[in-house]
Amino acid sequence: MLKYQSVAQSIEHEIQTKDLTQGERLPSLTELMTQYNTSKSTIIKALDVLEKNNRIFQVRGSGIFVRRNQRKGLIDLQTNRGFSSDMEDARLSAKVLSFAKVTPTNEICQHLRCSPDEPVFHVKRLRLKDNKILCVEDSYYLTTVVPYLNTEILEHSIFEYLKTSYQLQVGFSEKYLSVGKLSQSNADYLTLSIDDPCLITHEIFYSRNGVPFDYSTNTYHYLNANFFLQITNTTI
Amino acid sequence: MLKYQSVAQSIEHEIQTKDLTQGERLPSLTELMTQYNTSKSTIIKALDVLEKNNRIFQVRGSGIFVRRNQRKGLIDLQTNRGFSSDMEDARLSAKVLSFAKVTPTNEICQHLRCSPDEPVFHVKRLRLKDNKILCVEDSYYLTTVVPYLNTEILEHSIFEYLKTSYQLQVGFSEKYLSVGKLSQSNADYLTLSIDDPCLITHEIFYSRNGVPFDYSTNTYHYLNANFFLQITNTTI
Repeated sequence: MLKYQSVAQSIEHEIQTKDLTQGERLPSLTELMTQYNTSKSTIIKALDVLEKNNRIFQVRGSGIFVRRNQRKGLIDLQTNRGFSSDMEDARLSAKVLSFAKVTPTNEICQHLRCSPDEPVFHVKRLRLKDNKILCVEDSYYLTTVVPYLNTEILEHSIFEYLKTSYQLQVGFSEKYLSVGKLSQSNADYLTLSIDDPCLITHEIFYSRNGVPFDYSTNTYHYLNANFFLQITNTTI
Repeated sequence: MLKYQSVAQSIEHEIQTKDLTQGERLPSLTELMTQYNTSKSTIIKALDVLEKNNRIFQVRGSGIFVRRNQRKGLIDLQTNRGFSSDMEDARLSAKVLSFAKVTPTNEICQHLRCSPDEPVFHVKRLRLKDNKILCVEDSYYLTTVVPYLNTEILEHSIFEYLKTSYQLQVGFSEKYLSVGKLSQSNADYLTLSIDDPCLITHEIFYSRNGVPFDYSTNTYHYLNANFFLQITNTTI
């Protein structure tokens, strides 16, 4: 870990252990330099990482402030590391509904930029939090990037498995959201009624070197799943 | 404008005019230094801004690549500069439903951190794109930050007005999303039926020095409004 990363982690840790609230002022740049016994550029880099992650905001000529919000139990729309890291305090689980190696449709080929000759994994899971159903997850994985999966792996965090076994991490993702009415089959999975409202997300996950390897469609339970995101106005 | 900002704008401009697509490689750091006749640190800063804005992604030891997606007509959940800047190509308009100075409820006081003695502006508008209804917007503005509004201003972009008249810009915002069923009154505004699905967003907008000045609730038309966001995995 680089110095600026460890400084960023320490500041983040301090915000949490001191239970600092939204808008509270952090020490100045100079004070942080003394506190962490490091250079100005390292502190600037650390603050930059914290700002990117919406943990602080910096006001020129005024100071560095904490950003923190009531988001307990909410799903962070901005992370692409899977649910497990979003909602650490809640008990998360996955129930496998189906799992097979299939021939990709044209739509899947387009999203994963693969050929119809390349089989893909098709995984359908129910995602739960504290035994409450969050969503039906319908995912396709490129077998060239994810060569092996089994039911046991699928009962836990797939991304955690990919990270540990293949050093594969999500670099970025694109998420598309719309609202619709539940089909009979999804209503059954979510124990809701046909035509009940739902949030539908389509997400394409790319590896750190830009290869799309996972195309997922989630259909969320409209009463159990709530979301948040933090937006910083970075003008080009 | 600082040098790195103008370099960032030029690169962004080049991506657009050359119509580069997702995954295309940009010139290397060294080539960009030559092209823009500037220092390494300026190019790094410019690339950092472009990465923050999800315009490029950088792969260590491999290169700089374009990020671009089919998002025409979609609402970008990650900008807080209002609709007008999100969907520049589409004809956007606003129809004022009601406008008054009111005493804030406890909920509003909490979000805008104001006292019940301070009146706030309450604005209800219908937002349209190409004459199709996008949402009902229900907003409260702190009069200490936004001292004046009128119907003519409300028929256009409020944020544009605040920027021009008060040099007030959004620094950051928090957005909460949930899905529900339409009330009769919102169904009437959206020309849908009661109990039809809808996305509801609650958003708190903060000024650049961290003052919350606008609390808005949007109820979106489930057929006319679709959304996207881009997520980069920045680990602390």
